[in-house]
Amino acid sequence: MENCFGIDIGGTTVKIGFFSREKGLLEKWEIPTRKGPEPTALLKDIHGEMADFLKRSGIPWEELEGVGMTAPGPVTEDGCLRGTVNIGWGDVFLGKEAAEIFGVSPVFVGNDARVAALGEYTYGAGKETDSLLMVTLGTGVGGGIILNGRILNGVTGTAGEIGHMTMNPFEILPCSCGKKGCLEQYASAKGMVRVAQDMLSRWKKPSALRSFGTLTAKDIWDAAKNGDALALEVAEYVSRFLGMGIANACYIADPALVVLGGGVSKAGQILLDMVRQSYAQNVFAHCRDRKFALSALWNDAGIYGAAAMVFQQGTFCD
Amino acid sequence: MENCFGIDIGGTTVKIGFFSREKGLLEKWEIPTRKGPEPTALLKDIHGEMADFLKRSGIPWEELEGVGMTAPGPVTEDGCLRGTVNIGWGDVFLGKEAAEIFGVSPVFVGNDARVAALGEYTYGAGKETDSLLMVTLGTGVGGGIILNGRILNGVTGTAGEIGHMTMNPFEILPCSCGKKGCLEQYASAKGMVRVAQDMLSRWKKPSALRSFGTLTAKDIWDAAKNGDALALEVAEYVSRFLGMGIANACYIADPALVVLGGGVSKAGQILLDMVRQSYAQNVFAHCRDRKFALSALWNDAGIYGAAAMVFQQGTFCD
Repeated sequence: MENCFGIDIGGTTVKIGFFSREKGLLEKWEIPTRKGPEPTALLKDIHGEMADFLKRSGIPWEELEGVGMTAPGPVTEDGCLRGTVNIGWGDVFLGKEAAEIFGVSPVFVGNDARVAALGEYTYGAGKETDSLLMVTLGTGVGGGIILNGRILNGVTGTAGEIGHMTMNPFEILPCSCGKKGCLEQYASAKGMVRVAQDMLSRWKKPSALRSFGTLTAKDIWDAAKNGDALALEVAEYVSRFLGMGIANACYIADPALVVLGGGVSKAGQILLDMVRQSYAQNVFAHCRDRKFALSALWNDAGIYGAAAMVFQQGTFCD
Repeated sequence: MENCFGIDIGGTTVKIGFFSREKGLLEKWEIPTRKGPEPTALLKDIHGEMADFLKRSGIPWEELEGVGMTAPGPVTEDGCLRGTVNIGWGDVFLGKEAAEIFGVSPVFVGNDARVAALGEYTYGAGKETDSLLMVTLGTGVGGGIILNGRILNGVTGTAGEIGHMTMNPFEILPCSCGKKGCLEQYASAKGMVRVAQDMLSRWKKPSALRSFGTLTAKDIWDAAKNGDALALEVAEYVSRFLGMGIANACYIADPALVVLGGGVSKAGQILLDMVRQSYAQNVFAHCRDRKFALSALWNDAGIYGAAAMVFQQGTFCD
């Protein structure tokens, strides 16, 4: 039987999935992310989880085809994970270190948003397509591009990093990355809340958004669905930037399908419709019928993509 | 002996090159572009030129490995050239029609900017690299991305079309494509002149740019090199958008090298320096040392790339 672990390392939790090539995801669970200056302790936690599971299930380590892992930063072709500010590591060869600690080979490592895109491509919204761009709308905005079943990773591991495309050259507020006018400043959950608070401070009429102590992106989209005029303005404004950013990315990579994922995309059809409208206003006529879809795997896209790296025994297309 | 023709179809002239796989470009010449509602007459002109050359040189048609051609519009994977507004054709299967008229097979067809990028990759500034983005600064702004020796073409043939990325969401003037705020509106020869004329109308001090009846992009860069204050402001302004657009494209495709080509890039080092500076201000720290180069093949990049399609017997990487 051909098995593997697919592991999604986030800033707060680590998701672990056990997959069979034939039957897909068999079991999944989460552990908290142990932070620190290097990944050793976290990798030992993960190793312990895998060992317990295999023992409990009576599966020998030798039956594993490998382990796939996501990492919250750019991963270069030689396997170096660069600058994972969320967790506190510096540059680290995560796959090599994991293979030693796990006693398993191969271990495949890819950027979380890129690997999630591979998950959607292989098992989710992109099953029927040759190429896709996935945009992950969470605390930040991540992205991944899949061409012919492989991650377009690039020479510095940043291919697909749509969230840091400059969309507004006149922005005065800085992004978390240090520069100004990044798509993430408008289209991330945090960015949407900032836009809403800014608009709210100048809004004279009633709005449901005033009633929230701590406003969230979900509150904004829920209010928009209920027809709140300000929430609709916020939704239109952030969707305009998002559709424009996706159009820009499509002028570069030109994928068959665009998938919207991440927590914010749970807003669903209204988000999809607004983003598609802005997209269509910002591309050549012959590109307007590009397919759009919502994520099919949601929070599991990362572990699915990690498993896909193992089952296809490879990661990057260049 | 392995030979081919590499043909670059532009809006004004058609460049024809005869190449040997071993010795490279052996002879090149130009003919005017015959315009019309369909490409038949132009293809017959090209066929006549090839026949005359081969007869004169004593080379039988059978010795040709094929013909490579560029086209001034997006070319889809199935070989359809879409919306060549410059020349007046509609959607046309140019390669298929050319193969019939030439009596030669295979005929490879690709978008002019994408094929020029392949030329630089195979024979020019990108000879030592695995991947590149080439930006062609001419009347418009074109672009092409090469990954592992193949053109990244995309599902609609628009991959690499950097000139129509929206760089200014607040622009009020329309681009030739119909939308507003495209990179081309600032970084093309025409766009640079427009920016200069606009700045000149509000400029109180003396400037060399006032002395030109019909201002050109070359005049602006020449004046900037001579230290003209307004010309330097124009150069900085357009380079800012260009560096930002290249940074955005690198966040999506992340190539090893960026090549600046086309007529405007003859401005040389000053342009390269200003664009690199703006690029570096708009990317993650670990991406700042990306290589930049000026085109090595200049106007011949198209015919070289067309020949490369034939010698590698293929065009697209997806």
